[in-house]
Amino acid sequence: MSDQDAAFMARALQLARNGLYTTDPNPRVGCVLVKDNQIIAEGWHAEAGQAHAEVDALAKLTNPDLSHGATAYVTLEPCSHHGRTGPCCEALIAAGITRVVVAMQDPNPLVAGNGLKKMRDAGIEVSCGLLQADAEQLNQGFIKRMLTGLPFVRSKLAMSLDGRTALANGQSQWITSPQARQDVQKWRAESSAIVTGIDTVLADDPSLNARVDFAVKQPLRVVLDSNLRMSPNAKMLQLPAETWLMTCNGDQAKQQSLRDAGCKVVQVVSDNGRVDLLQAFKYLAQQQINSVWVEAGAALNGALLDTDLVDEWLVYVAPCVLGDQARGLFHFAELQAMAEKKAFKFNAVRQVGPNLRLTLSR
Amino acid sequence: MSDQDAAFMARALQLARNGLYTTDPNPRVGCVLVKDNQIIAEGWHAEAGQAHAEVDALAKLTNPDLSHGATAYVTLEPCSHHGRTGPCCEALIAAGITRVVVAMQDPNPLVAGNGLKKMRDAGIEVSCGLLQADAEQLNQGFIKRMLTGLPFVRSKLAMSLDGRTALANGQSQWITSPQARQDVQKWRAESSAIVTGIDTVLADDPSLNARVDFAVKQPLRVVLDSNLRMSPNAKMLQLPAETWLMTCNGDQAKQQSLRDAGCKVVQVVSDNGRVDLLQAFKYLAQQQINSVWVEAGAALNGALLDTDLVDEWLVYVAPCVLGDQARGLFHFAELQAMAEKKAFKFNAVRQVGPNLRLTLSR
Repeated sequence: MSDQDAAFMARALQLARNGLYTTDPNPRVGCVLVKDNQIIAEGWHAEAGQAHAEVDALAKLTNPDLSHGATAYVTLEPCSHHGRTGPCCEALIAAGITRVVVAMQDPNPLVAGNGLKKMRDAGIEVSCGLLQADAEQLNQGFIKRMLTGLPFVRSKLAMSLDGRTALANGQSQWITSPQARQDVQKWRAESSAIVTGIDTVLADDPSLNARVDFAVKQPLRVVLDSNLRMSPNAKMLQLPAETWLMTCNGDQAKQQSLRDAGCKVVQVVSDNGRVDLLQAFKYLAQQQINSVWVEAGAALNGALLDTDLVDEWLVYVAPCVLGDQARGLFHFAELQAMAEKKAFKFNAVRQVGPNLRLTLSR
Repeated sequence: MSDQDAAFMARALQLARNGLYTTDPNPRVGCVLVKDNQIIAEGWHAEAGQAHAEVDALAKLTNPDLSHGATAYVTLEPCSHHGRTGPCCEALIAAGITRVVVAMQDPNPLVAGNGLKKMRDAGIEVSCGLLQADAEQLNQGFIKRMLTGLPFVRSKLAMSLDGRTALANGQSQWITSPQARQDVQKWRAESSAIVTGIDTVLADDPSLNARVDFAVKQPLRVVLDSNLRMSPNAKMLQLPAETWLMTCNGDQAKQQSLRDAGCKVVQVVSDNGRVDLLQAFKYLAQQQINSVWVEAGAALNGALLDTDLVDEWLVYVAPCVLGDQARGLFHFAELQAMAEKKAFKFNAVRQVGPNLRLTLSR
């Protein structure tokens, strides 16, 4: 693979990012068609139901004959199945493409490689794996869902330097800076769902939507509400995008009044009286939720800490101190020995306005 | 000033750093002698009582006549007074130096510029201010003491990601990594004094010395002990370097038993029954303490937060979580409104092994 191959694939990845906020539940995919070392067309997948990246690029050719003998750079293995659009590998074969460079295979183990094989069988020179890590980064949620049946889960925390999320009296507006809060909106916008706990809803009556100045497929809202404490008057129920309530309380009257208010109510199994988090996230993946953005309080984050469900923790740290009477970040039973400490590792640190954003994983 | 001037001054600053751990209470100073664009001698101040940087450089000339017509680059204004060594500006004049480039004036307002003037009066071409910020960085403590009569104070904190310094049961070994704890040893080594509170001494019986593998003038230990709770058997009293106890308790018998154990006991005024921190730090500056390194618990750090005495906060953050039952970083009365939050700003972030080191100021 040459430097030029890498440059064309990098361009294809850049095009894929055009769909970052809109392709859900589909993956973000980009495609570049190249002939005589010149780009002759570019395409990307914009949203479910619209053309896949390869078909979009072919449609943008100024002259359909140009594709004969061209090379296609695609960030994800072209599909071989008949979905809402025809299979892309057939379109590439029909267009007379003679070489295809792919960044990564389809993550679905049942289909991975089928598209590549079909093209090879048609006589196309096919290679796979160029800039694979970058391609994977673009679709962490889609890939994890395909491989594991669970969404990629990111939990966001916002705290003072001394690890506090609110004063003892509950006040918390604002610990972090406007820049940090705007950064959060972008993370929400690229997530399939925003998950929170009922305590946060009761305390803050939040909107939990993505307030950004670009086109976005609004994420689903999911409230974990073990005991059906949600109010039918919650502000979020008046806003666009769906709200799902996940509960282990079977009270049909309460469930119906929440359905009447516009909620979808999903009953899941309980784990000691609380919504079973593994089952809840499995259910979300079954409903094509690729990625989950958690904004919750100390109780839910404490419960999440003990699961392996969170892939990444984002912690916004404001340079202020609230003191040891203020509220903590994670609630769980008192540890008795340092060996019980919950270990993470730092993956990245970034300045966001006057705050820091720490990225961690277990 | 030319690029070459800056390069020679940068070298002089590098030489000054040779004295980082040993010159206290004197400033760190470096000197380069240059003739025909070649360095002909280098010097630095190593420790109090030994040659100043300029005299050290002159002594290192292979031939004393070489200094005639040479340029001297010095990181701090040459002294004009008769201390334990003769005045450096007279030495430079006598050596026939014809040009002197200085990074910064003597910070003592009573003498600043006198050395420069004396050399100008002798016909030397003198300029001042080259790489001044770097020169100031090297002697933050000395400069602050000269300008304000107070030491430069750095407080070190070590916490889990969620702002905890120990489990509820007091266990705290170890939250941070070996690399972070070794980093602390270097900061101790370049400080004039390590200050702690009696609670920390009673809880941990610490050594509070600089455990490094290079030559160091061991810092003074200072224990703030309002009520004379210090034990004459404290481990630190058996170790090299002095321990001073600062108290506002006048119990002469207790004071004497601590003196017998090797402590110096200093009685300072009280502020609501606690050692008055401003008066304590003023006293330390009067005793030629340039820089103070605070390693204390939540109570003393909470008290320090409300003073303007701390110039810099260093916070080591370990990627682990101890939970909201664990002990906090700063203790003070509960805040009632977010407007009362204690504001800082981030000045630097650095990775130290698996931990982060955050540098903040108010």
